[in-house]
Parts: sequence; C-alpha cells; structure tokens
Amino acid sequence: MAQKPSIPKGTRDFNPEQVAKRNYIFQTIQKQFETFGFQPIETPSFENSDTLMGKYGEEGDRLIFKILNSGDYLSKVDDGLYSEKDSNKITASISEKALRYDLTVPFARYVVQHQNEIEFPFKRYQMQPVWRADRPQKGRFREFYQCDADVVGSTSLWQEVEFVQLYDSVFSALKLEGVTIKINNRKILSGIAEVIGASDKLIDFTVALDKLDKIGEEKVKAEMLEKGISEAGITKLQPLFTLSGDFNSQIEQLKTILSSSEEGRKGIDELAFIDIAISELGLQTAKLQLDVTLARGLNYYTGAIFEVSAPEGVQMGSIGGGGRYDDLTGIFGMPDMSGVGISFGLDRIYLVLEEMNLFPETVTKNIDVLFINFGEAEALFSLKAIKQLRSYGINAELYPDNAKMKKQMNHANKRQIPFVVLVGDNEMEQGKYTLKNMALGDQFELTLQELVEKLA
Amino acid sequence: MAQKPSIPKGTRDFNPEQVAKRNYIFQTIQKQFETFGFQPIETPSFENSDTLMGKYGEEGDRLIFKILNSGDYLSKVDDGLYSEKDSNKITASISEKALRYDLTVPFARYVVQHQNEIEFPFKRYQMQPVWRADRPQKGRFREFYQCDADVVGSTSLWQEVEFVQLYDSVFSALKLEGVTIKINNRKILSGIAEVIGASDKLIDFTVALDKLDKIGEEKVKAEMLEKGISEAGITKLQPLFTLSGDFNSQIEQLKTILSSSEEGRKGIDELAFIDIAISELGLQTAKLQLDVTLARGLNYYTGAIFEVSAPEGVQMGSIGGGGRYDDLTGIFGMPDMSGVGISFGLDRIYLVLEEMNLFPETVTKNIDVLFINFGEAEALFSLKAIKQLRSYGINAELYPDNAKMKKQMNHANKRQIPFVVLVGDNEMEQGKYTLKNMALGDQFELTLQELVEKLA
Repeated sequence: MAQKPSIPKGTRDFNPEQVAKRNYIFQTIQKQFETFGFQPIETPSFENSDTLMGKYGEEGDRLIFKILNSGDYLSKVDDGLYSEKDSNKITASISEKALRYDLTVPFARYVVQHQNEIEFPFKRYQMQPVWRADRPQKGRFREFYQCDADVVGSTSLWQEVEFVQLYDSVFSALKLEGVTIKINNRKILSGIAEVIGASDKLIDFTVALDKLDKIGEEKVKAEMLEKGISEAGITKLQPLFTLSGDFNSQIEQLKTILSSSEEGRKGIDELAFIDIAISELGLQTAKLQLDVTLARGLNYYTGAIFEVSAPEGVQMGSIGGGGRYDDLTGIFGMPDMSGVGISFGLDRIYLVLEEMNLFPETVTKNIDVLFINFGEAEALFSLKAIKQLRSYGINAELYPDNAKMKKQMNHANKRQIPFVVLVGDNEMEQGKYTLKNMALGDQFELTLQELVEKLA
Repeated sequence: MAQKPSIPKGTRDFNPEQVAKRNYIFQTIQKQFETFGFQPIETPSFENSDTLMGKYGEEGDRLIFKILNSGDYLSKVDDGLYSEKDSNKITASISEKALRYDLTVPFARYVVQHQNEIEFPFKRYQMQPVWRADRPQKGRFREFYQCDADVVGSTSLWQEVEFVQLYDSVFSALKLEGVTIKINNRKILSGIAEVIGASDKLIDFTVALDKLDKIGEEKVKAEMLEKGISEAGITKLQPLFTLSGDFNSQIEQLKTILSSSEEGRKGIDELAFIDIAISELGLQTAKLQLDVTLARGLNYYTGAIFEVSAPEGVQMGSIGGGGRYDDLTGIFGMPDMSGVGISFGLDRIYLVLEEMNLFPETVTKNIDVLFINFGEAEALFSLKAIKQLRSYGINAELYPDNAKMKKQMNHANKRQIPFVVLVGDNEMEQGKYTLKNMALGDQFELTLQELVEKLA
C-alpha cells in the first residue's frame, strides 16, 4: 500500500492536545455529575438490532450502523428472499447487531434488564460514543460522544430543579459564563394546541412555532395556515408572539392564554415551581429562560423540555438539551417508569471553549522535564534521578538516543517542554544536575532534592 | 416486546461499581503513562476495511467485525458476483468499514497519516475498546479495552529499560506486588534455531519451545522431532532446558550455547544491557526474569519480547505483554520506523485485583450524604445546603419525593450512603441540620459550617 492511509469520512483522529482538551471537558462534567449524586454505567458499543430498530423513527433506522454477521452469513439467507436482491429486506437476515445510536435507548434497555439489581430512583450518567450514518458536515460526525445524566423512577419536579442547577454547575466549572438554559413544557404546547383547536395538529403546530426565531412571525403564521390551522386559532395565538418580561411575568401571561386548558395549566404550574425554586437557590453564571417555542424531541418528551445555548455572541447551535419522558422503559415492556435527563454536546462545547479561549493552559501540558542524553553512563545516572522525580508525580523522561545536543534541544522545543536537565562528567562527579529553563534560557546547578523542589 | 431485553453474547453491561473499579485501573495506568512522558491519542472505532484487512493473518481477517454499508448497498453489487451467493467474495462489495481489532494497526496508520505533524520519537498511549468476533468464553469478550503505550522512531534500548520500569510502576501503584516481568528477545530465538540448524523452522521450533511449561521437556522434544528438527539439533538444545540461576548467570550460559550465532550474540547483548540497567535502577515490587521460551507474537516482534504474569498463587494468564517491532509502519508505506510497546490487559488485571481484594474501598464510594425529604419547604431549605456542600466537592443529594421516612432511610441503606441529613420545622427555625451516621446510628445537630467540616 503506497498511498497515504486515511480514515472513514465523518470520523476523526484526536492528537494529544485534542485528547487532553476533550478529557478536560469530560472530567469537568463527570465531577459535577458525581457531586450531584449520579453514578456511571456503561453499555456495549453494539446492541442486538431489535433493541435499537424502530426506536428512532424511519429516518433513525436508516442511520443506524449495522454489523455484518460473521462467518458464512449468506448461507442462512433464504434463496427466494436472496433472489429479490432487496437491501431493505435482506438486512435483518445478514445483520443481527447494530452500533449504539444514542445513550437513552440502551439505558432504557439496561434498566429493564437489570431492574432487580437497581435501587430506584436511579440516577445514572453515561459518557460514551454513539454512531450515526448521517451525512457528515461541519460539526456533524459519524462517531461522537454523548454525555448524559438521567434519573429514572421518580416524577418529582425537584429533579428538574436539580438539572437546571447541574447545567449551571457544569458550565460555571468550565468558566463558560452566561449560557442560557431555555425551558419549556410539553403540556404547555399541548395546552396551546388545545386552546386554538389544533390538538390533532400538535406536531405541525410545534414544528412551525419552533421556527419563530429563524423565520419570523409572519412566515410561522403562513406555515400554520398551510398545515390547516384555522385563522381563528392563529389569532388566538397572537399573545404568544409578544410574550415579554421575566420568567414570572411570562408565566402570568400564559395563565391568561391557557386558562381554559387543564393540561396547559398543569404545565404552567410545573414551570412556576421550577422558576420559584431556582430563584430561591440562585444560579452561579447561567440564566434560566422560559421559551414557549422550544419543542425539541417532542414526540418523546412529556413534561419539561430543556435546551442550553452558548453565551451571546457565540454562533453555535444548542450545547445541551433534555427533558422528561414519562414512559422511558415502556418500549421494553416495563411501564410507568418516568425518566428525566439532560445531555451535554461535547463537540460543540469544545468549539465554544476553543473560540472563547477558555481551556486552561495547564490542560495541554505534557512533560515537565527532558533529560538530555550524553551517553550510556550519563543516561543511567539520569534515569536514577528520573525515577525519583516520577515518584513525586513529576512527568520526566530521558531523550532515548545519544544524539547531537542541538537535535535534543530542538526536540524539547518542538514539544514545548519547559525544562531540560543536562548531566555530564562534571555533574556526575558532584552528584548535581544542571536545570535549564527553556523559555528564559537561564540554568542552575542543583542537587536531586533541589531539583525535585524546583519541579514539583 | 414483552420478553426481557438482552445484549449480544460476548458483550457486557457495567454497573456503577464495576465502572468505578475499571476507572480506577484506567486512571492508575494513565497516571503512570503520563509520568513516563507518554501522550494520549484516540482513533475512530471503525477504520476503512483495507486499513485492517490482511494485517492479522487469515484468522484475524475472519474475526474482524465488518460494518454493512448504508442505503441500498446491494444495488452496487455486480449481478454475476451476487448470483454466486458467496459470503467471502461479496463482503468487500457490501462493507467498506470495520471495527478496530487492536490498537497497534490504527496507531501505525495514525503515524503514517500524521507523520508531518508528529515530533519523533513519538511516545503515545491509547486506551480504547477493540472488537473481535471470537467465540466468547470465560474471560474472553467480543468487546474489550486495550491500554497500550508505544514509542515509535527510536531504536534505543533505553526504551526497553523504561518499559520494564513502567510495568513495575503501574503494578506497584495498583498495589499488585510480586508480578513477574518475563523478557526474551527474538534474536535469541533466531540464534538458537540457527545453532541447531533449524532456521527455516523457526516458527515450528518456537511454538514447541513455548509449551515447555505446560507439557514438559520430553513432549517438547517429541514435537520438535515430528516437525522435522534433527536429533542432533535437539541434543544441542539440551542446555536450554536446564538453564538456571539468576538473570546474569542465564546470560552467561546462553553465551556458550549461542557463541556461533552472530544474531544470537546480539540478542544476548541486548538482554544483558537491560538487565544491568534494571539492576542499577531497581524495581519497586516486580521481578524481571529471563524466559527463553517466551515467543508471543513472534512473526511480529523483532527484538525484545515482554510478558507479565500475575503474582504466584493467582491462576491467571498473562496480564500484559509487548515487544519491539522494527518495521511498525511499513505496512502503510513508511519504512524504517522502529516501534516498541507494551499493553495492559484490563479485564485480567480487574479479575486479579478482585481476587486479591486490592481495590481501595474509596473507589466504589458514590454519594456522601442524602438529605431526607419532608416536604416542599424542607426540600428547598435542604437544597440550599446541598448547593453549599457540593461547592466544597461533597457529593450530596436530596431524596426526590416526600416519601415515608422508612422508605427514604432504606434507600440510603441500600445505596450504602454513609450519612443522611434530617431537616424538619425545628431545624429550619434554628438554621440547623441533623446529621445521622448510618453505620453508628448516632446523630448531631449542626450548623451548615459544621456540616461542611464534618463531611469534607
């Protein structure tokens, strides 16, 4: 193979700097997850196909990566079926496993499978890659990580309050200040649809409403008309387009609009509860905002809906989202298990931190000190010191070859190693080490103990 | 779907305790990797099939999991080829990607692809899952992690010395004392084959010799005879079967046996260099042992060969292995890049630590304190304290529902939460918190500041 090798489109290699930065985000999120009482689980990268298929709609089924059966997989395919040469029909006969598409369905499967070992309510977090055969584009990959925290087995609204605080804590810990946590409630959307006589068009209605930010009021109304929502209904919607003021005053306006819908009023009560609790508890750096146009994953969520957007001025889609789904495990035959959870978008958070220059410098430091190699005896003398330094947690290494001094110093520079140590005859005789600061160029002759103190 | 869902054979779910224990091993290894100057990279879970196929032998090709192309994949299959219904022939037409089988080939691909950005010698570590369609059995899985550290771009023997020290440091940090690091050298095996006139039968010869521990001297000799190695040759081998004494005295005996083989003498020099350096530097808890029967991955390694076995008394295969391969990247068209590396067997290390009861108790602790929920006002009062505790890094949570006290206490017990806090009218009036030690049963009324101090 003479041509340079490559990787599949939509996938990525991560170099040491990128891994370090990604790990910084993972660790920050993980630390907050644990502080909030979430516990980690992990599930296999591939599941039985019937665990995944049919859970994400037709589009989702298409985007699931299927794994070819091993061995002589065609021998088990019926000749009649085979002769049709129909990809859709044959897939189930030659593929029994598929790569994880998200973390929620495997979590639901896990809960049902291990229900007897789990103490409910169960607060779990999971940070693992998922795979989607989506068309790759800027910021959209075929392999990417999801970082999810969910609680299953409790309908308490305190969970929603906790998740707002968790978002605030994570983004504050990342020094990403000023994110907006948008919140809505499926019951409010249902209530509005009910009030305008479009309960049967809930999806069309919310899809149109969701575009308000992007296409403006007039076009949203036109789309609703087109979808068969009545003029009268749309007129009743008018106050929604002009909702204003803080969270609480919006709640008051909604109360008027939705006064005739029991479900709508219930949604308002839930939002008010969360708002009051958060006002009492306070947020460190995030803002909580009511957004009645927020509808993500609607055919899924049954209560609260969350979405987080980056600080103003940063062009980026949502960097997190989530909500409550009353019947998480019903698809696997275990009814009445309410779940609520949130997700962090690692790749987008990475891009935002990069753009705003928020990665701490220490994240990408690698090695503290390189010992220059002047020959066998010097190398052995150096390795003895290196062993000591490492025992103090100092990252140290020896240049492996007795190469020209210049080459070794260049190596230290290119790797941005802050210090080098020079050990020659002189140093060996005196039991000393010459430490050179690569940035300043100054150097000191030190004992091993002084070296440890200087570098620790 | 009424029946309980399951996962594919050979795969595993990990519960919170297992994830915590696995992470403890990962983090311990990672810490030592970094202390030794290795830097992390990550590669995609799937590679283009031609990157992987043909790199692991025929058996390996069979065991690689292939990913079915998306969309109407059959439409691109030639009708003539299709009509043969031959799984082997059709695979390349319906599958272009495959799951990673190990970390070494993707690393070689990475080095070649990114050669212009890499500063050599390049010390990288990688801890990611790999997948093999092997028959699952006890301790053998279809998805498992590998933890590899490799250096590419240096032929220096100091690397081998460093890897022996790295093994020692990792196992010492895991408190797994008394592991044996076995070392051999491909050149010694070649030398022996040369001396007994069986250079053309090197593989047969080493496969037989490798069994010495298991089947004994006589049966090894019988197998060699059967494979066409001469009686005279086997007689010359006799001293090998009775090699004795410490590392250095075995070296001396090998010098006699291999005196006529230049390659053999070179292998001896390499081993002696490593032995002398390690004697000077010392090991914390591991032993270094020469084992001329060690031959793992022979058609791959060109110099040092490593294997680590668990402490005496623990029945377990090797818990680590590695070696030097002079032409790591040649398969991707970049010649003369020497690599040397070692791997840690996570699953087996886990089993050994479990068997020897070596996981620190703190590893599986989850939450520090649960606040009992006595109602809305109490819950809000509690959440304010919880927020403070978390800011001090204390893992704290509120029981989400105002359930019966007994149920909440049971929850704390089942999750082995060490402390609960009780907040009622009394406490709220006085601004106090009643902390109960779940193991001892005693309780104290504390201010928030005292609570922080007690739990921190």
